[in-house]
Amino acid sequence: MTSDESGYRIERDTMGEVRVPADALWRAQTQRAVENFPISGRGLELAHIRALARIKGAAARANAELGVLDKELAEAIATAAAHVAAGGYDDQFPVDVFQTGSGTSSNMNANEVIATLASRAADRPVHPNDHVNASQSSNDVFPSSIHLAATEAVRDDLVPALEHLAGALRAKAGEWSGVVKSGRTHLMDATPVTLGQEFSGYAQQVANGVERLTATLPRLGELPLGGTAVGTGVNTPPGFAPAVIELLRQETGLPLSEARDHFEAQGARDALVEASGQLRVVAVGLYKIANDIRWMGSGPRAGLRELRLPDLQPGSSIMPGKVNPVVPEAVRQVCAQVIGNDATVAFAGTQGDFELNVMLPVMARNLLESIRLLAAAARQLADRCVAGLAANEEIARGYAEGSPSIVTPLNRFLGYDEAAAIAKQALATNRTIREVVIERGHVSAGTLTEEQLDQALDVLKMTRP
Amino acid sequence: MTSDESGYRIERDTMGEVRVPADALWRAQTQRAVENFPISGRGLELAHIRALARIKGAAARANAELGVLDKELAEAIATAAAHVAAGGYDDQFPVDVFQTGSGTSSNMNANEVIATLASRAADRPVHPNDHVNASQSSNDVFPSSIHLAATEAVRDDLVPALEHLAGALRAKAGEWSGVVKSGRTHLMDATPVTLGQEFSGYAQQVANGVERLTATLPRLGELPLGGTAVGTGVNTPPGFAPAVIELLRQETGLPLSEARDHFEAQGARDALVEASGQLRVVAVGLYKIANDIRWMGSGPRAGLRELRLPDLQPGSSIMPGKVNPVVPEAVRQVCAQVIGNDATVAFAGTQGDFELNVMLPVMARNLLESIRLLAAAARQLADRCVAGLAANEEIARGYAEGSPSIVTPLNRFLGYDEAAAIAKQALATNRTIREVVIERGHVSAGTLTEEQLDQALDVLKMTRP
Amino acid sequence: MTSDESGYRIERDTMGEVRVPADALWRAQTQRAVENFPISGRGLELAHIRALARIKGAAARANAELGVLDKELAEAIATAAAHVAAGGYDDQFPVDVFQTGSGTSSNMNANEVIATLASRAADRPVHPNDHVNASQSSNDVFPSSIHLAATEAVRDDLVPALEHLAGALRAKAGEWSGVVKSGRTHLMDATPVTLGQEFSGYAQQVANGVERLTATLPRLGELPLGGTAVGTGVNTPPGFAPAVIELLRQETGLPLSEARDHFEAQGARDALVEASGQLRVVAVGLYKIANDIRWMGSGPRAGLRELRLPDLQPGSSIMPGKVNPVVPEAVRQVCAQVIGNDATVAFAGTQGDFELNVMLPVMARNLLESIRLLAAAARQLADRCVAGLAANEEIARGYAEGSPSIVTPLNRFLGYDEAAAIAKQALATNRTIREVVIERGHVSAGTLTEEQLDQALDVLKMTRP
Amino acid sequence: MTSDESGYRIERDTMGEVRVPADALWRAQTQRAVENFPISGRGLELAHIRALARIKGAAARANAELGVLDKELAEAIATAAAHVAAGGYDDQFPVDVFQTGSGTSSNMNANEVIATLASRAADRPVHPNDHVNASQSSNDVFPSSIHLAATEAVRDDLVPALEHLAGALRAKAGEWSGVVKSGRTHLMDATPVTLGQEFSGYAQQVANGVERLTATLPRLGELPLGGTAVGTGVNTPPGFAPAVIELLRQETGLPLSEARDHFEAQGARDALVEASGQLRVVAVGLYKIANDIRWMGSGPRAGLRELRLPDLQPGSSIMPGKVNPVVPEAVRQVCAQVIGNDATVAFAGTQGDFELNVMLPVMARNLLESIRLLAAAARQLADRCVAGLAANEEIARGYAEGSPSIVTPLNRFLGYDEAAAIAKQALATNRTIREVVIERGHVSAGTLTEEQLDQALDVLKMTRP
Repeated sequence: MTSDESGYRIERDTMGEVRVPADALWRAQTQRAVENFPISGRGLELAHIRALARIKGAAARANAELGVLDKELAEAIATAAAHVAAGGYDDQFPVDVFQTGSGTSSNMNANEVIATLASRAADRPVHPNDHVNASQSSNDVFPSSIHLAATEAVRDDLVPALEHLAGALRAKAGEWSGVVKSGRTHLMDATPVTLGQEFSGYAQQVANGVERLTATLPRLGELPLGGTAVGTGVNTPPGFAPAVIELLRQETGLPLSEARDHFEAQGARDALVEASGQLRVVAVGLYKIANDIRWMGSGPRAGLRELRLPDLQPGSSIMPGKVNPVVPEAVRQVCAQVIGNDATVAFAGTQGDFELNVMLPVMARNLLESIRLLAAAARQLADRCVAGLAANEEIARGYAEGSPSIVTPLNRFLGYDEAAAIAKQALATNRTIREVVIERGHVSAGTLTEEQLDQALDVLKMTRP
Repeated sequence: MTSDESGYRIERDTMGEVRVPADALWRAQTQRAVENFPISGRGLELAHIRALARIKGAAARANAELGVLDKELAEAIATAAAHVAAGGYDDQFPVDVFQTGSGTSSNMNANEVIATLASRAADRPVHPNDHVNASQSSNDVFPSSIHLAATEAVRDDLVPALEHLAGALRAKAGEWSGVVKSGRTHLMDATPVTLGQEFSGYAQQVANGVERLTATLPRLGELPLGGTAVGTGVNTPPGFAPAVIELLRQETGLPLSEARDHFEAQGARDALVEASGQLRVVAVGLYKIANDIRWMGSGPRAGLRELRLPDLQPGSSIMPGKVNPVVPEAVRQVCAQVIGNDATVAFAGTQGDFELNVMLPVMARNLLESIRLLAAAARQLADRCVAGLAANEEIARGYAEGSPSIVTPLNRFLGYDEAAAIAKQALATNRTIREVVIERGHVSAGTLTEEQLDQALDVLKMTRP
Repeated sequence: MTSDESGYRIERDTMGEVRVPADALWRAQTQRAVENFPISGRGLELAHIRALARIKGAAARANAELGVLDKELAEAIATAAAHVAAGGYDDQFPVDVFQTGSGTSSNMNANEVIATLASRAADRPVHPNDHVNASQSSNDVFPSSIHLAATEAVRDDLVPALEHLAGALRAKAGEWSGVVKSGRTHLMDATPVTLGQEFSGYAQQVANGVERLTATLPRLGELPLGGTAVGTGVNTPPGFAPAVIELLRQETGLPLSEARDHFEAQGARDALVEASGQLRVVAVGLYKIANDIRWMGSGPRAGLRELRLPDLQPGSSIMPGKVNPVVPEAVRQVCAQVIGNDATVAFAGTQGDFELNVMLPVMARNLLESIRLLAAAARQLADRCVAGLAANEEIARGYAEGSPSIVTPLNRFLGYDEAAAIAKQALATNRTIREVVIERGHVSAGTLTEEQLDQALDVLKMTRP
Repeated sequence: MTSDESGYRIERDTMGEVRVPADALWRAQTQRAVENFPISGRGLELAHIRALARIKGAAARANAELGVLDKELAEAIATAAAHVAAGGYDDQFPVDVFQTGSGTSSNMNANEVIATLASRAADRPVHPNDHVNASQSSNDVFPSSIHLAATEAVRDDLVPALEHLAGALRAKAGEWSGVVKSGRTHLMDATPVTLGQEFSGYAQQVANGVERLTATLPRLGELPLGGTAVGTGVNTPPGFAPAVIELLRQETGLPLSEARDHFEAQGARDALVEASGQLRVVAVGLYKIANDIRWMGSGPRAGLRELRLPDLQPGSSIMPGKVNPVVPEAVRQVCAQVIGNDATVAFAGTQGDFELNVMLPVMARNLLESIRLLAAAARQLADRCVAGLAANEEIARGYAEGSPSIVTPLNRFLGYDEAAAIAKQALATNRTIREVVIERGHVSAGTLTEEQLDQALDVLKMTRP
């Protein structure tokens, strides 16, 4: 490692010399990758870098236990890795996310930065491959870092955010259990529901999302660690993977396990596709919820006007006083992004060849971004929208009472065909169902009593039959 | 060709003997494919089979011109092919669409059926490969048949259907040029528009779709014919492709041409991906139109109630008298299908290897189905929905007049900030913009005259500033 | 029901009279739908129609138990429904799959056909709505029929097919446990693996697919039954849904349950999106497997030549003697279709409004087709490809021994950098790793013994370190 | 604007007071948006911000021409906008891309920053709405900025990059016009092609991409400018849009025009969906090219070995000396991203409601990122991969000569069936086609002369029949 005056030093790897910025902690292979991949201008997701470093630390300690590395060296590496995992060196990861498909460049970036830090701390040479990467290969450690990062982000970021949102929705469901409105199917007036029932449905949707994600964790938490280059575990001592995974499990409390089949675990990335698919279901659910809320809040005069959303910001640069459902709109856009990200992940998932799928960085980027976006969107939706919603109860009840579909409970007295005739007549003559039933002589004929009629037409009762 | 008593006969190909149903016109290779691919239960799209036969006929005639086949034989083949192209033998194409990726099985199916028909008519042996397939390969003729079928279906089915729909929308645009309503942005009341303006926008959207499709035809009409096995044109006499294409052009009037580069034309299927992408734009447009119409027709009491859709069928098996926007719903589902079909086509498009993309039948299926579905959906939307729409002019005007955004034209008199204050006050106190402007003293202060105020607040005028 | 001479009879519904083919079992509403939706030319998937009928039968019996229908009438309906469920009346379901988004037309089609059959059998009038549809709405029964059909098809068709395929792959894994070859990562030679290890990975992938699908069944098996029109269960007697579901559970043995929240269960179709996503993971896995097999079989001279696939059919209409991997190609196309179908399902899933998602038929079509296609593809792949694969052991071993990556086990003796120098030198001078190690003096210097060198370079041993 | 000691100042808008960082150039509405949308941590694409500023500048000058703003004020705004457009204030755009669906927050961010800059320069108050946004609405100016940014990026970034790549491919096509190899269809040996022919096909694919993009520009260059709030152009003086567009055309030389129908142009974003679809075709094409190159370079021993790719970086952290096709891998991942981005754009495109599609920022993000990524990927592929490719001519020729499909030209002498028998026998007995033809007596029988046989089997001649 020699430094010239121009602010660069010379590093070497197996392919020769490379000029590296003098103050960079990274070395030759990172620098080559920086030059080979000036593509998106963005690196790995930060959560990904940190998970990678966490594995490096656990691997160093396992290598010490198994006699692959001496204790001092291992400790220096583990300490350096811990600093990286804590986010202290995010700026030392300059490699573009669009890079070699195995993530080797980012793995070497981690190896090199940790080697430099460890070398400084221990005051002895530390080799990125022979020491930091000992018992590992990019091909097992890099996908493991994706699974670790995703499992952690699902558990610690997305699931709490969804539970928070489900709570906010459930609170509204309780608050509005008596607010009756017209149901809508095909956008057309249907039999009544309560606003509370609608929000209970939303809360359940979100809770189901948590259930789906949780059901996926066992497979997402399967780590390819120990397979090294091609799944066989060449150059890894027996017991390495279990030891590393046990350390990671202790450190994180996550449901991590060793891959059941290391050839599946490196040749395919199906568990990422599955996880992405479940994120998509969450997005699908949030989209519907955001959309319904937008529509219920539409107006103030020419819309449905059942809800009032919190005023967050002026809505228009030209129309004064306009306020828009901006948080549901942001949520919808997040959902659209997650759907696209998922298409990328699934496509990439099909493209594994033999012992490795080399679409790893792009899968990681999209999966981890989706988790992050959904979590943020769920929090904003809960705090800046749902929590502040107010119901226009009068309008809602008016809709319920006006819906011709409230004739439905009369089917059992009059049959579907006569009920249909009543509904049509009420609509055509702009009268109530009640009036038309009486006019058509059903009460006078004794088909049903006036009391039965009143009972049948009680819109709130119709919501709890 | 020998027949046994069990209703089968024995056919031979280069791999040996095969039992074929005694009365089938197809031969050994078709039968093998029937047995190898019992997958979806469906064959090629009919338009695809017919286009394939049309090429076979033109190829026979070109082969005669070029001395590859004798005239009598060529004529027998061309006549047989014409019968197939006319739809007379659709039931003789039993091979599943999920088959060999080159479509060789369907190409051989066509070769065999035509050989049998020609052989019967000419009373001499006709060989499926040496005669019917002369100067051709599945690898150039099968993709050519997709391009031909798609070009024809776009021009003869989809474009007329879209033009019909655009016409129906334009008619409504004219009819409703004076029907004012509240614009809606973010679903919230905005400055006024006319219903006619909205429908002019829809008509333009549909017309743009025609423009997009038309712009794609030159590339879609490029045929790989003449490339044979790998693009080099091995075993094809000079002049064959131009002759076949000229015959097809005369027969169909379509903008067909020979591929500019035969290696591109067989190794890649980008033009199908492009065409599918343009079909998707059409679907995206129809989706928005169908959705807007659904919402405008929502009600009859708890919705927007700006339009009445034609009553086509009872809407509910339980709610009597309910009528739903069923045609827009069918259209939306068609659009969803087209979006999915397009995802299949694009995915398949990425998967070419070297000299051939072997995802041809699935690309054909999805592309041709999308064209067919969109055409049918456009016709139904025009005839069973748009043509019968009726406007609720009173409700629409009420929305326009109630929208707080009609304060917008006062910006230039009062500035955005004061206009916003007026809009908010009008909404909060449930008064009109006009009342609040006067109350806040703008007329008395002479900021604007009462006449200017009236002019500014004329909702119909606001739609044609 | 009156019949005229023209082959039609007149039927009536709440909207008036309709001409129906004289011999059709369906009635007015079906006929209206036939006329409203001439779109794709195809109806519901057969499995869907049958599931719908099965629910009708169970509902009739539950209605009898609960006193809604008299026993004789219920029995007549149940018997008629059983005949439909057994596939005896598939031709009486002419309604296009692209129809009203609630599937009401198909629900009424079932109601009408069953009413006609029951009426004939019982010799008394049976009303499609008041009797066959009693206690139900399209809005709960139609989505329930999708969930039922999908749950059944997953358990009875797809899972067995996948298990069959996993078995075939596992058999090959056992057979080839000693067939060593070069691993490939990034398509470049890597350390050795056995062909058996690769096939064990494939078997695990397929088995994981079964696990994923099974994990989804509890949510897929949740039925909206009992929610009727809008989730409130209006017009349904208490106990109806549990009774119907118990009957269905007994009849089918499927893990069915009543929806936890009926508003979620009708407003959203997230469980279908989830199931479709898991089907997509299966497709993603099969795609990779089919692709690897294709490549291993590539040749016979200019490819990888590790495997020989069974000869199924002549591969080319122009190149004599060519045989292609047609079954893997068909499988890949099925996977492409499933990916597109899934995009449709997910899109449709986002588009629910308020109390109902009205994209139901298109979701059903795509989900059920995907299950059917994947099952057929898995069976063909197992039986017409995997079972007949033969290994070219000599070629495979030659690859393993030639791979410069077999230097990898020497890392621990020589370090990564020196090992890299050896690999490069071996490649540049076209010698073996062994030769270069000796030439560079590592054995003579005692860095490792010749025995250690032989051990380290034993390619089969490298696969089980 | 008052500043407190805590590093914040107080700003006001129509909703009240907001604390803004003291040194921020933005004002109240930007700040509200910063707080409402802490979602992705990323703002608009820089090209988007700059395009927005460019429109603001042209609008100011048009407003001056039309008497809406005084010259001095307009000039101050135009100058400030020019500085923003030049990239001098990118850090003053802190609003997240996931925001209000109209982009109003970013439009107001631009209005506020420019107002502050102009106000300082002109030393007079400048109002973000009344002055900078004069004659505009977010609803016409924000989508216009997307179209402008995309049109410019396509013309100035992507098209040149693709032309550069096409040039690099074409150079190789010329260099290798005599390098014969086996064609591959279905991955199986086919008749010969030259490496040059393959690269000519790739060059054509890329050139077709340029043609596709160019064909899209007229629609992409249609700007909604002049429609303001809802398409009617309320609050815009006559001549405003043409004046602004003319200024933009002069400034940029881009094919910009005013929207043909302003209701289509704001209610729908079909032209963005179309453009995204064409980007996807480009990605589909690059994917195939990158894949073929990867495979041709596979080896060094166990792969196809037809090409050698430039060595760019060590390929493995564990396998010494391994070099991988990292640039094609990065390209493939970019393509996967573009396919996902496109899915987002298309989904968003379907979701317009009435007078506005409120998925604008997410559409912009994905479209502009795709353009940027594809351009970078094309450049890297050209410069770090294609330009440095070297052919293994001997291996390639050996494949050509070994392919059993070279029997194909003998079809015309011997018929397809006998040719197939020859190919099979050659393969089974490991002899050449030539040997088997002679052995089977075709030359001695005079079916063809030895000279004809040699001619027919000349592999290079087969590539130019």
